[in-house]
This record gives sequence, structure tokens and C-alpha cells, in this order.
Amino acid sequence: MATSSDAPSAGKLWGGRFTGGQDPIMTQYNESIYFDRAFHSQDVRGSIAYARANVKTGILTEREFSEIERGLKGVLKEWETGKFEIQPGVDEDIHTANERRLGEIIGKEIAGKLHTGRSRNDQVATDMRLWLRDQLDQLEGYLIDFLKVIAARAEKEIDALMPGYTHLQRAQPIRWSHWSLMYGSFFASDLQRLREVKARVNKCPLGCGALAGNPFNVDRDAIAKELGFDGLIMNSMAGVADRDFVVETMQWGSMLMMHLSRWAEDLIIYSSGEFAFVKLADAYSTGSSLMPQKKNPDSLELLRGKAGRAFGQMAGLMMSIKGIPSTYNKDLQESVEPLLDHVKTVGDSIQIATGVLSTLAIQPDNMLAALTPDMLATDLADYLVRKGVPFRETHHISGQCVALAEKVKKPMDKLSFEQLQGVDKRFEKDIMEVFDYQKSVEMRSAKGGTSRSAVMEQIEAVKKALEGGR
Amino acid sequence: MATSSDAPSAGKLWGGRFTGGQDPIMTQYNESIYFDRAFHSQDVRGSIAYARANVKTGILTEREFSEIERGLKGVLKEWETGKFEIQPGVDEDIHTANERRLGEIIGKEIAGKLHTGRSRNDQVATDMRLWLRDQLDQLEGYLIDFLKVIAARAEKEIDALMPGYTHLQRAQPIRWSHWSLMYGSFFASDLQRLREVKARVNKCPLGCGALAGNPFNVDRDAIAKELGFDGLIMNSMAGVADRDFVVETMQWGSMLMMHLSRWAEDLIIYSSGEFAFVKLADAYSTGSSLMPQKKNPDSLELLRGKAGRAFGQMAGLMMSIKGIPSTYNKDLQESVEPLLDHVKTVGDSIQIATGVLSTLAIQPDNMLAALTPDMLATDLADYLVRKGVPFRETHHISGQCVALAEKVKKPMDKLSFEQLQGVDKRFEKDIMEVFDYQKSVEMRSAKGGTSRSAVMEQIEAVKKALEGGR
Amino acid sequence: MATSSDAPSAGKLWGGRFTGGQDPIMTQYNESIYFDRAFHSQDVRGSIAYARANVKTGILTEREFSEIERGLKGVLKEWETGKFEIQPGVDEDIHTANERRLGEIIGKEIAGKLHTGRSRNDQVATDMRLWLRDQLDQLEGYLIDFLKVIAARAEKEIDALMPGYTHLQRAQPIRWSHWSLMYGSFFASDLQRLREVKARVNKCPLGCGALAGNPFNVDRDAIAKELGFDGLIMNSMAGVADRDFVVETMQWGSMLMMHLSRWAEDLIIYSSGEFAFVKLADAYSTGSSLMPQKKNPDSLELLRGKAGRAFGQMAGLMMSIKGIPSTYNKDLQESVEPLLDHVKTVGDSIQIATGVLSTLAIQPDNMLAALTPDMLATDLADYLVRKGVPFRETHHISGQCVALAEKVKKPMDKLSFEQLQGVDKRFEKDIMEVFDYQKSVEMRSAKGGTSRSAVMEQIEAVKKALEGGR
Amino acid sequence: MATSSDAPSAGKLWGGRFTGGQDPIMTQYNESIYFDRAFHSQDVRGSIAYARANVKTGILTEREFSEIERGLKGVLKEWETGKFEIQPGVDEDIHTANERRLGEIIGKEIAGKLHTGRSRNDQVATDMRLWLRDQLDQLEGYLIDFLKVIAARAEKEIDALMPGYTHLQRAQPIRWSHWSLMYGSFFASDLQRLREVKARVNKCPLGCGALAGNPFNVDRDAIAKELGFDGLIMNSMAGVADRDFVVETMQWGSMLMMHLSRWAEDLIIYSSGEFAFVKLADAYSTGSSLMPQKKNPDSLELLRGKAGRAFGQMAGLMMSIKGIPSTYNKDLQESVEPLLDHVKTVGDSIQIATGVLSTLAIQPDNMLAALTPDMLATDLADYLVRKGVPFRETHHISGQCVALAEKVKKPMDKLSFEQLQGVDKRFEKDIMEVFDYQKSVEMRSAKGGTSRSAVMEQIEAVKKALEGGR
Repeated sequence: MATSSDAPSAGKLWGGRFTGGQDPIMTQYNESIYFDRAFHSQDVRGSIAYARANVKTGILTEREFSEIERGLKGVLKEWETGKFEIQPGVDEDIHTANERRLGEIIGKEIAGKLHTGRSRNDQVATDMRLWLRDQLDQLEGYLIDFLKVIAARAEKEIDALMPGYTHLQRAQPIRWSHWSLMYGSFFASDLQRLREVKARVNKCPLGCGALAGNPFNVDRDAIAKELGFDGLIMNSMAGVADRDFVVETMQWGSMLMMHLSRWAEDLIIYSSGEFAFVKLADAYSTGSSLMPQKKNPDSLELLRGKAGRAFGQMAGLMMSIKGIPSTYNKDLQESVEPLLDHVKTVGDSIQIATGVLSTLAIQPDNMLAALTPDMLATDLADYLVRKGVPFRETHHISGQCVALAEKVKKPMDKLSFEQLQGVDKRFEKDIMEVFDYQKSVEMRSAKGGTSRSAVMEQIEAVKKALEGGR
Repeated sequence: MATSSDAPSAGKLWGGRFTGGQDPIMTQYNESIYFDRAFHSQDVRGSIAYARANVKTGILTEREFSEIERGLKGVLKEWETGKFEIQPGVDEDIHTANERRLGEIIGKEIAGKLHTGRSRNDQVATDMRLWLRDQLDQLEGYLIDFLKVIAARAEKEIDALMPGYTHLQRAQPIRWSHWSLMYGSFFASDLQRLREVKARVNKCPLGCGALAGNPFNVDRDAIAKELGFDGLIMNSMAGVADRDFVVETMQWGSMLMMHLSRWAEDLIIYSSGEFAFVKLADAYSTGSSLMPQKKNPDSLELLRGKAGRAFGQMAGLMMSIKGIPSTYNKDLQESVEPLLDHVKTVGDSIQIATGVLSTLAIQPDNMLAALTPDMLATDLADYLVRKGVPFRETHHISGQCVALAEKVKKPMDKLSFEQLQGVDKRFEKDIMEVFDYQKSVEMRSAKGGTSRSAVMEQIEAVKKALEGGR
Repeated sequence: MATSSDAPSAGKLWGGRFTGGQDPIMTQYNESIYFDRAFHSQDVRGSIAYARANVKTGILTEREFSEIERGLKGVLKEWETGKFEIQPGVDEDIHTANERRLGEIIGKEIAGKLHTGRSRNDQVATDMRLWLRDQLDQLEGYLIDFLKVIAARAEKEIDALMPGYTHLQRAQPIRWSHWSLMYGSFFASDLQRLREVKARVNKCPLGCGALAGNPFNVDRDAIAKELGFDGLIMNSMAGVADRDFVVETMQWGSMLMMHLSRWAEDLIIYSSGEFAFVKLADAYSTGSSLMPQKKNPDSLELLRGKAGRAFGQMAGLMMSIKGIPSTYNKDLQESVEPLLDHVKTVGDSIQIATGVLSTLAIQPDNMLAALTPDMLATDLADYLVRKGVPFRETHHISGQCVALAEKVKKPMDKLSFEQLQGVDKRFEKDIMEVFDYQKSVEMRSAKGGTSRSAVMEQIEAVKKALEGGR
Repeated sequence: MATSSDAPSAGKLWGGRFTGGQDPIMTQYNESIYFDRAFHSQDVRGSIAYARANVKTGILTEREFSEIERGLKGVLKEWETGKFEIQPGVDEDIHTANERRLGEIIGKEIAGKLHTGRSRNDQVATDMRLWLRDQLDQLEGYLIDFLKVIAARAEKEIDALMPGYTHLQRAQPIRWSHWSLMYGSFFASDLQRLREVKARVNKCPLGCGALAGNPFNVDRDAIAKELGFDGLIMNSMAGVADRDFVVETMQWGSMLMMHLSRWAEDLIIYSSGEFAFVKLADAYSTGSSLMPQKKNPDSLELLRGKAGRAFGQMAGLMMSIKGIPSTYNKDLQESVEPLLDHVKTVGDSIQIATGVLSTLAIQPDNMLAALTPDMLATDLADYLVRKGVPFRETHHISGQCVALAEKVKKPMDKLSFEQLQGVDKRFEKDIMEVFDYQKSVEMRSAKGGTSRSAVMEQIEAVKKALEGGR
């Protein structure tokens, strides 16, 4: 009783069997050529490697392979010179487009042999992995550049002191470099993770066929080697089902963007009129169409905003993949556009952050002016600790000094020695030496602390993290 | 000590104050013209309404207004005829582009008065709301069409019986129409929600200025009326800070897509070789590049996959907005691209679903053949219930019958009367009448059930839900 | 060839058929009693209403119903007095627990009739909706209280001026009340949405059975009426498949939390040492275990952090539901725990925010001191606009004044009249009157602006929004 | 003008300075003791290591350290024996609880020295990392066990053939083992990632203080070594700001759950009545309260549903962290509860999956019966490929055979040789040998394919992946 009312669809690759027509919205809903064309060169490279391997299987003669190679290089050239003409409604995706054009160049007889034992399922997975591997190499370079700027500024501006914050409340004096190296620590971890992800991206699925493997005993290792892969996705069903490499990349990217967002948030606050610790270069600021006095940190706000975008791509793809059964389902096509945008977003963002950091001006006088004596309350407590008073007691005593200063409306370092002794008898004359921000910062000389030597050690650690990889 | 090393940036609207240059990546990272051009006509409409209101405030003379109106209509015409030339690196966004062109057409003297008391902050919010309101009208139309197809098929194919599933296990017999109307219920709720969202989208923020309101006492109500808004966003800071209307739209859209995904999932399963309840029209299927026998439900898989995409856009934007302080921050620019894609994705998806449902063929024989006597086990239990046996006991007895049938490897309706009586003496001769799928379905005649009358009532409910709105 | 190696599982409700045992982890993985016990009273109420309706269907006699009602009230009392004893491993969920106990109280003969024609599928949906409806009523109350505080403070402190920010840069002077009413606008929309959501939550699924409806023609309308529902979920499959009411609640809640997060973010920044606009009450702050001088806005940070939690619950549930086919699948059990926590989180958060706002102290002197003359640059531009100069030109001129002030290191209002005239001849003596924050704020008298009357109008709008509902 | 109306809060650790009271909701909103008590033993271990290191700094004498160690071991014992009494409203978190109790046991004089130079900021980060490291060890064990079951079944049941699906349409014959090893491939990657994550979790933040480091030059390396950490989080601000180790764990966990969800989805479909490829053990199924015949794969549905839950926790935390500035903000407390639940959910889920797989029965006869001759259409095409016909042509020819079989309503292998020759003359007598599922499967002998040897090689690969780590 099944009925269908469709007109013929000619010109599709699988046309042999179909007898129905296409809804124009469906054509557009289904086709991927307008975005997967990004993989045009990878598709050509993969096809050449596949064809070469099929000489050994006996599918192709040496001459046929030469023709295919010649033709594909011609196709690639057309892409590179902007001469490739996509045929709307016919070139559904980059694979069909390239093969269609190959057939026009070298004839369908030989071109028609290229796809033997292959499926678009393993083909697209190969294209994506090749493309992504190269992109991740580039991102690694951007990230290394960014870390170099972090390290360089940290070294150069190690003398600038500023308030360290917790809960956005002034807490203890730190070095500006120390603040920057906190992010150095985060981004160095991002670098490490990137290298781990890249190793998993760079596995070869070609030769997996539609799902069950290759029936002509193609030498998958040889293909992988030619394409620069580090090994295979072994199981053929996994090879076509797996978009984990995209998810992993996006998990990595959205964590990196999360770091950039916190970094940007700090700098936005530090560049407010109230803090005024840093001044963005004009190149990374914009003005207001209404308020002539304004200079807005648009670059930082975009970094912060795009962290959401990058996360959303990851979240969306995880939802799509989570909801499907195994192997290839067309849902997986939804991994491509987000990936393209994700990689671009992350790459641009790292470069923008590098530009911002390279050109911003710190305002050390304002930083210094923002330090307040009550930020040394812990040092005051520590003073008594050194005299053997239990910390919990010293913490309480120091708190009383803070309260006294508030009560008498004086900065804590302007309390008289007598007033301090009034709080606790164990304060001696040398207590006044505590009120020295420089000394406070140098005091924290344990590893990872704010002293000059501890900061220098961290700079070395960042530099060390750059090695290896690529 | 602050230093900046930037070259002059000429040609920007806020150029008066800035002395630095631009990083080309930053220009591209910052500009929105290549996507917010989607709002070109709304931007023109908003500007005309704003200019008209500024005749009353005395900012513009009648003649100046006429010039502005003439010029803006010219600008619009250029967009509509594809003649508008975006000046790369100058036309940062649709607002600056349109005003730049206006100035070229009518001269900067008058054109320079248009933006008085206005900011791009209220301008972009107005453009987006106008655009979205019209889009939501269109989506409402698509949704109504889809619901009409659901209702029509449900009415026409009310006789087709099929297994109803819970846990993807056959549960009880239902009508095919009943299955379809479950989704009718979901989509009717989506329609109701859409109308509620639209009412909140359709509020006017124009006249809010950068954040503090309009200093020339512009008549905001008049502007709102001219633009077809249903009232104002009152508080001027809310007017520029608020992208809730985008979030709400995406929450709505991602819930609708979630429904489409479940619908598609059902139909994908029903169109598998093992179920074979429905056959998609060729127009909404595609073939395999490797396996000639395959016909894949790509349309449904894309629906399912795009549900993730739509969700990701919502999730990403919520993260972006969640992380910012009040009023306008550039992060909000990240609402535009996802919104454009979201609305298109949802609109296409509803239309695809409508196409799929309009053209698919049900296979009633296969549906019927999939019904098995053990699906009437509850009816068997109900039989005894009618004889006064407590349900918990009848449930147990019926379970024993199921087990007996399994044991003797017979369908339950082929158990002899004696065998049934062996399980429980209270079974009488008429027990065999229970094994009738048609009867079982008709038995569920309480509201919302599977009987013909109950299903007809649901169809009426769906039709009723279409009224109102638009 | 199928084999199973399971030991008997006695004591389960469906024990009639099963012959296998349980893995203890599975028991715990599967059971919901330790969280769905939250619905104990709703479960009892629903059962009583269902039983009453089954007198009319003839399933129960009046006496049986009385016994059931008596028994269920006894069960409820045990819950309320903390005497209900959950039987681990037996009481899988609240439904089986309550029915088990009912049978012990009134005997299994009658108790065994209660579940006739009902399934846990429609039962749990009913319990959840009843519970949620009442919770949403409570949340509505909390939200109204919060809005009342917003309105009251806005009215009382209307005279306090402060900088309004965009991009976290000082933009234009505003009233503190105006800032607060921006959030009033957001929360009033939340209130409106809440009422819309509640209307959809409050629909009755009871009588839908497992999926196909009720076979004893039970009067669903009567049940719905007794339970205080506003109508039915008609389609029986929708009744059991639908957790949209949970998703919608969470979409609502996560948007409200997004607003609370932005509100908290503003206040955290405003309570930093650098801004010092507000001082949190000690009740909503905490100290540091190490730094005695610190007072941290923990309440606000928790609000901000919990916005992520609330969002995650929504995102997670949408992913779970998105990935399933129609009707009831056990995946839906995953809606319960997130819902319980979500509602509590949102309710607590609104109350905390109310407490914070009720007790915080504003520091108007600091607010005033943070206003700077360059924030009046737009007013300066507007001055010339009033003299007929096109805004684009005045914007440029005003920008030059800002630059001049920076250059000569003076606040803009300390530039001499001659200096201003040096920038533009059209400045006249009265230009100096522009440098008046009070005047600037009053100037923005268009609807939604910062003038006293415009702010008062907004306060009325908030009050008006509280009406209706509940 | 700032006012506060709070009553005194006595008994808080930071009580020295505060003069206000607490809102009971705030107390509960703020306190973490009811969940961070999970870290009780880690908190004790960390404190002992910290105290030991403070003997060397001179803060503690040997005797004081002994007392502290004795006391802390006493505290631990109380936790382990269930005798620790939390003091509601006083014991805000595990750190204050443990120190409070320590003071009661050994006296406040010495106990008050423990926290010297330490903050709850570095303390909680240490506790969490210690706890998580041990949990990840356990998860690794569960995952290895699961992979062992996968490998063992794959080896034992290598002879069972079944349809391989793409788009949920029958595609090509595969081995059941091949299906299973696809997931083996995914889970082996999960194992690899787990080991990478663990290495980053296992870094020591102790000695970072509140944010600026330790002022007594404590030997952080010694502490790390005692606690079994592999190195330090160097930068002290990073040490307290970083919850990436939680995010990473959840990204890992939600990807693993995504795999389990796809695995469960496959098995749910395969255990439907229509497919009937597998039968779950009763231990992992449940029945219906209404329909006695039903056996539902609840375990698998819960796995699938909990994938959403796990994802939501990750998504929520990323949103929370994304929205904060640097170092410690109270928002980070929101990482704890989700982490606890996430780890438990993932651990339970792996164990459930292991149980399901260990006990399910495959139904090889049904699997075999589901194979259909048209699944060999590619083999038919390959036949001609071996005769030199270009694949694109053979694909078309094979499609015509499929269409012919449909037209004459015969399975493809029942077409006569003449009928096949009618489609293409190049078919020879041996074409009928193509219709052999066993042969088809063996034909795919390239690496990763379905042949016996290729599958055995994959099994070895899985076993190999288990080595290393732990």
C-alpha cells in the first residue's frame, strides 16, 4: 500500500535506484558542498593516496593511477585558482564535486574506478582529520606565541606591584607578573592538552569503507603513512562512526576560551576607570557612537563573548552525537560547520589576545596606589606567628587592628605603636617594618610565590612548556 | 607611563578621539556588517520612524526629515537590488553602513542629524526585534501548516493500527493517528509558547539611547506605534542590556527541535527494515555512494542532528550573557549570528518535517503484523478486573499466561481455553474475545485514549489550537 | 539459544514473570524512592482522586473507596510524622512504597484494586506536576517579594546618582534607582513567564495509563478538577511522554538565574574596594580564614555560581530527552533529581537576593565622587545640537574637548570658556551649565529615562506587573 | 551613610571582625559541610603533611607536630566510625569542622598553629585533587574490567554474524564481535584520555596560601611527595583559581557517557521485539506495573539518560567558571557537588554496562535471519570490479539488480542467472557464489575489517590498550 508521489531525480550519484524527486529546501538542507569545500585539498590528497594503494590491490593499473593523479591535481589547481565551478544541486558535497570534475577531466571510465571499496563515510572522516591536524598545528603555533609574550612581559615588568584579589576584594600584594603567570599556567596546560588531542586526531580512517572494511585488502598502513597519519583507527565501524576527534577538539577549545574569558574579564575590570591598572591600545578598543569620551575594550569583550559561542558548538555537537546509534548517521554532518567556525574562533581569539597583551600599557603608579595597608593584615598576623603566637590567635589580633583602624578612620599603617600595643602587648617596635609592600611580596618565596626568584622560576617553567610538540 | 604604539585610524565614526591603528584580524573580529546586513531593511525602517519622531522634538525640520526619508529609501533600494556596496574596513556594521551611504546621498549636513540622541545600542536592539518579530510570524505559519498536515493525516488514516511502544518494547495496540497526535500535542504547545515569546519580542527599545534614555523627550510611544511594536521596553538600561528575547526564542526553538528530534527518531526506527512501518518519499531520502541497495532517511537524521545545533546556540548564548555585567557589552554581538542561523534552522526544519510527513507512505499491513497477542496481556488482566478480581492479582495471573505461552512456544491467543483455565478458574469462554486488537483499541475510550471517538476529539483539539495568534 | 543466569527476584511488583535476580548496584541505580519520596503527599492525593473516580466506573465500591481513602491518609500521616519506613530494595519508588504500605494497612484485597487501569507512567507525571505547580506558586511569591523590595528601594533612594556603565566604562550619570529598575524590568518578565509556564504545568495526565489511555472510561475531567488542575493533557501518549513541563521550568529558572548572576556581578563589582558603591550586610558576607581584613560577597558569588548549576540541569535534561524516542523511557527518571534541586536552588537564590538587597547599604558619596565631567561629553554635544549643529559634528567637537582636557590634564569642567571656544566658536557662556550631573539626569525625561518622573513611572510599572497571577 | 542592621555572629572562624548575624537560608546556602565531608580523610592527610613540613619552617616543634598528628588521626577515626558530630551552623565546611574538633582534642593552643600560612583556598584544592586522583584510579579499574569483558565476548562469539547498520538501515553483514569492538575502540580511547587527565589532576596546590604563596618558605616539594602528587601547581594564584581539573574530568566523563549512551541505544534497539538480537538478563531489566508481558531494558535507558546528567554537570560548571575573574571566587564551591555526583554516576554506569554485557544473551539465529541478500549488493558490484568494470558502473548495475528483485518481489539471491545476465552480460555463472554472508564478511580482510583475522587483531589491540597506567 506504500505510495510515493515523487518525480525522477536524475544526476545524483546513487541515481540507479531512486525514482523520486527533490524538495528544493531538502536539497539545501542536505547538501554540504558550501562548507565542506573547505576540505578540497585534503579530499584530493586522500584520493591520490587511496588510488596509489589501489595499484597494489590490482584495482588500478599504473597508467590509470597516473591519470587519476594528474586529474586530481588539476582539480586541486582549479580550487586553488578559484576556477572550480560548483554545480548547484548536483555537487552535493566536496567528494561528489571532486569526482564529478575528475570524470570530466580524465573521462568517467577511469575516474569511475577511484571510489572502489571506498565510501564517503571513510572519505569524509579522512578529510576532516587531515584538515584538523593541520589546523591544530597552526593553533599550537599561535598558542606558543601567546605564551612567549606572557613570559616576556612577565620578565620585563617584574617590578610592578599590584593588589592581588580574591572574591574581587583586595587580598594581598602581588607582582603584575605573578598575575600574568597564573594565566601562563592555564595556557601552558592548554598547550599540553592540545598536543594530546592532536595525537588522537591524527589517526587514519581511510580503508574502513562504509562500515565493514575494505574488500580488496588495501594496505591501510601505506595510505596512513603517505598522508602523514600516526597510525590507524582500527575498527572499521569506529572509523566511520567516530566524531570524538571533533568533540575533543571542541572540549579543548572551549576550555581554552574559558581561560581567555577569565583573562579578558580581569583586564576589562583592570581597565575600568575605577581600577585603571591597564590601558588598551587603540587598536584593540573602539569608541561610542553616542558618547565621545568613551574607549571601550571591545576586543576583550568579544573574547569573553566568543567563549560562549565556542562552548555552544561543543555542547550542541555532544547533544547531536549523544542521541544517535552507532556508525554513520547523517546527524554527523552537523559536526562540520561548528568545527570550521570553532577552529577559526579559537585561532582568531588567541591572536587577538596576543595582540592585546603585546600592546597594552600598564599603569604601575595606579597599581601601586591601589595597595592599602590592610592588605598587610596577614603579614601583621605572621609577625606574631614568628614570635610563637598560634596563627588562629594572631588572625584574631590582626582583625582587631583592622577594626581599630576603621574605627579611628586611619590607614592601618598610621596607627601609632601605642595603639597597636593596645591591641596586643607582644607587638614590638619592629612591627612598623611590616608595612612594606615590597617586603611582603618578597616574603613569599616558597615555590610558586610572589618573590622575585619564585616568579623567575615560573617564567622558566612556562618557557620549558613550549618545548616539544609540533 | 602608559604607552601606546598605534598609528592613526581614520574613517571610523568615533575617529575624533582615537589616535591608534587597527590590527586586521581585530577589524574582522570586531565587524558585524557581514552578518548584521540581514537587518538592513529594519535598520532603515527604524531610522525613518526615529527621524519622524525627531521632527516633533525640533531636532529636524520637516524638510530635513523628508530628505532623510528619501535618502533612506534610496539606501534600502540599493540593498534590495543588490547594489549596496559595503566598504570593507569602513562599514563596521549595518548602522554605520546605512548612515555612511545616507550621507553620500543627501549630504552629511542633514544625515549627520539622524543619530541625535540615539545610540547603536538602542538601534541594534530595535533592528533585531523588528527582524525577529517578522521571522517568528513566518515560523508560526510553518508550524500551523505542519499541524494541519498532522491533523489531516490523523483523520484520514485513523483506521491503521500499530503497536504502541514504551521503552521501545511493544506495549499496547494504538492507532497510527494516536501516535501522530502525541506529536500534535507537543507541537501545539510549541505554537502556544511561540505566541507568548513573540509578544515579548515585540517591544520597542528605541529611544533608550546608549543606556540613560533620550534627552530630547522623544515620543517613544509614537515610534513604537509606527514600527508596529506592542509597547515599550521601559527602562532604558534594560532596553540596551536585554538579549532575553533572543535567548527566549532559542529556548523555544531548541525545545521545538527536541520534539522534532524525537519525532524523527521514531520515524527512523519505523522506517528501518526490521520495523518497516513507514516508507519515506525518495525526495527526503538519499542513497549510499557504496551500497546500491540503501535508502537512507537523511532528512530525518538531519532533523535529529540539527536539534543539537539549535540547542548549542542557545547554550552558548546563555553562557555569554550569563558572564557579563549589566547594560551593553560587546559580548552581546555574539547573539546575532547564532540567532540568524537558529531561526533559519528551525524554519527549514519545520518545513522539512512537513514535507516528510506529507509524502511518507505508511505500511499498514506491516504495522498490523507487528501486533502480538501478548500486547493484550493487560486486556486479559482487565477481563478479570471486570469480574471483581483485584488488579494486582489479575496482573499476576496475566503474567502467568504470558509465561505459559512462552513456555509452550505458542502465541498467547493460541493457548487453549483449558490452558487458560489452568492458570485461573475465573476465565470463562468469552475470554477468547479479548484477543482482538480492534476491540482493545476501542476499549480505551476515556478522554485522550485510542478509541475512534477519543482520537477524533484530539484532532479537533489540534485544529482549535491553530486559532488565535498571528 | 538465549541464556540467562539470574537468581529469583522475589518481592518486586512485577514478580509474576521474572525469574532473575538483581545486581545490588543496579538496584540502587534504578530505584528512585530516595528522591521521589518528595512527592509522597502528591502521590496520596492523586491516588485518592483516582480511586474516587473509579467508584463511578464500577471498579470500586463506595466501601472499598472509603477503605482506600482511610488507608492512604494513614500512609500520608506516617510520612508527615516521619514514621514511614522505607523497605530498602523493595520500595523501588514512591508509588510502590505507598501501595505496599496501603496493602499492609487495609489489606491487599482492596489495595490491589487501586492501580486498576493506571500505570506508574501516568502516576509519576501527575505527582510531578502537582508538586511542581505548588512549588511554582511559592517561587512566584518569592519573586513578588523581591520585586517589592526593588520597587521600594528605588523609590526611597531615588536621589542617589551614580555612573551608568556600558562596557564597564563610565558612560553617563544615572540614578541608583534606575540601575535597580533595569533588573526590575528583567525580573518582571521572569514573573510573567513564570505564570505562563505554570499554566502549562498545571495540566492533568492522570488517566493516560501506560500509554494508550484508560479502558474503564474513567472521568478524567473529574479527577483533574479534584486535583486542582486546569484541564488535561489530552493525548494519552503525550501524557506519559512529556517532560516538557520540567524543561520549561528549567529554561525559566536558568534565565532567571542568568539575571540574578548579572545582578550579582554588578554588585560584586560595586562592592569592590575600587568602586565602593555598596556595602553588603555582614549577614551576606563572609571573612577569610587567612586574611583578617577581608569581607567577601560570598552570597553574591554563590548566586552567580549557582546560575551555572541551574543551567546545567536544564542542559542535561534537554540532552537526555532529545535522545529518546516517544512515550515513556526510563531515561525520563533523570528529570526528577535535577528538578528537585533546580527548584530549591532557584527558590533559595531569590530569597538570598532579596535578603542581600534588603540589607545592603549604598554609599551615595562614593557614587557621586565616581562621576566625572567627561561623562557629560554627550550633554556637551547635545548643547550644540540644540543650536542646530548636526549631531555627528557635535560628537566630533565634544570628542575634541575630551582630548583637550586629557592633554592639559584637567577635568573637562575645569576647561576655561576660552579653551572651549577655541574648540568651537558656537559655545556660548551658558555652556558651563552643562556640567551638572543632576541636570543631565533630569534631561533624560523621555519614557524609560533617568529623570525623576521617568523613574517614578517605571516604579509604577513594576508594581503593576505584580498584579494578576497566583 | 552605610548602615547595617545585623546582630553579632559568634563562633565563626573569622569572628574577630564581623559584627553582623546570619540569615538561616544564607547559612545553608553557604555551608558545604554536608557535601565536602566526602573529603574528610584527604583533609586530614593534607593537614598532617602540611604540619610536618612546618616543623622544618620552625612554625611547629616536633612535639607540637606529634600532637597535631595524633589529634588529626583521632578526628579521622571519628569520621571512619561514624562518630564525628557535625555542629550545625558552626562547622561551615570540612576544614573548619576538622580544625574545630582538633582543637577540642589537643587544645586550641597547638591546634591554632596548624593553619599558619595556609588558606582554605589551597586546602580545598588539595583535598579535591587527592580525592579525585583516587577516584580516577578506581574508575580506571572499572573501565579496564569493562574492556576485558568486551574483548572476551568478542573472542568467544566471533562466529555470530549480524547486519551492520548505517543510518539504521541494514548495510553490510558484520560479525557481532566487530560491532562490540567498535565500542572497544571508543572505550580504549576513553582509557587513554583518563590517564592523561589523571596526570594533570595529580598536581599539588598546597602551599599556595590564599593566593600569594607561603611566607614561611615551606617546602612544597616535600609536601607533594608525602601526598603522592606528581609535582606542583607552580603559580600560587593558579593553584587556588584552577578548577580545570574538575572540568577536564567532567569533559572526559561526559564523553565516556556519550559512548555508553550510543552503546545503550544500539542495545535497546537490538533488544526490541522487531530486532530481537539480544536478550537482557532479568537482573538488568524491569517489568511494567500495568503490562504483565513487558520486560524493559531499564538499565540501558538509565545509562542513556544519565549521559545527559553527566553532560549537564560539565556544562553547568563550565558556565560557572567561565563567568568569573581570576583566583578564588566562591562560585568555585559549585564545583564540588557536581563532581561528587559525576564521579559516582560515571563509576556506577561503567559497572552497570559491564554487568549488562556480562549477562546478556545474544540470539544468533535472529541475527542471521535479519541478513538479507540485498545487503550483498556491494559484493555484487565488487564482483564486476574484479572483472575490470569501473566501480561507478558496477554500483549502478548492482542498483538495477536490487530494483529488479524488488520489482519481481524476490530476494536478490533468488533472481535467476538469466535475470542477472539480463541486467549485465558480464555476470558469469560464479556470480551466485557472491550470495554468501560468511564469504562477504571474510572478504573484508584489510586491517580493521570484518574477517576473522582482522577481528582477532582488533581484540589484541584492545588488550594492549589496557596495559600501562594505574
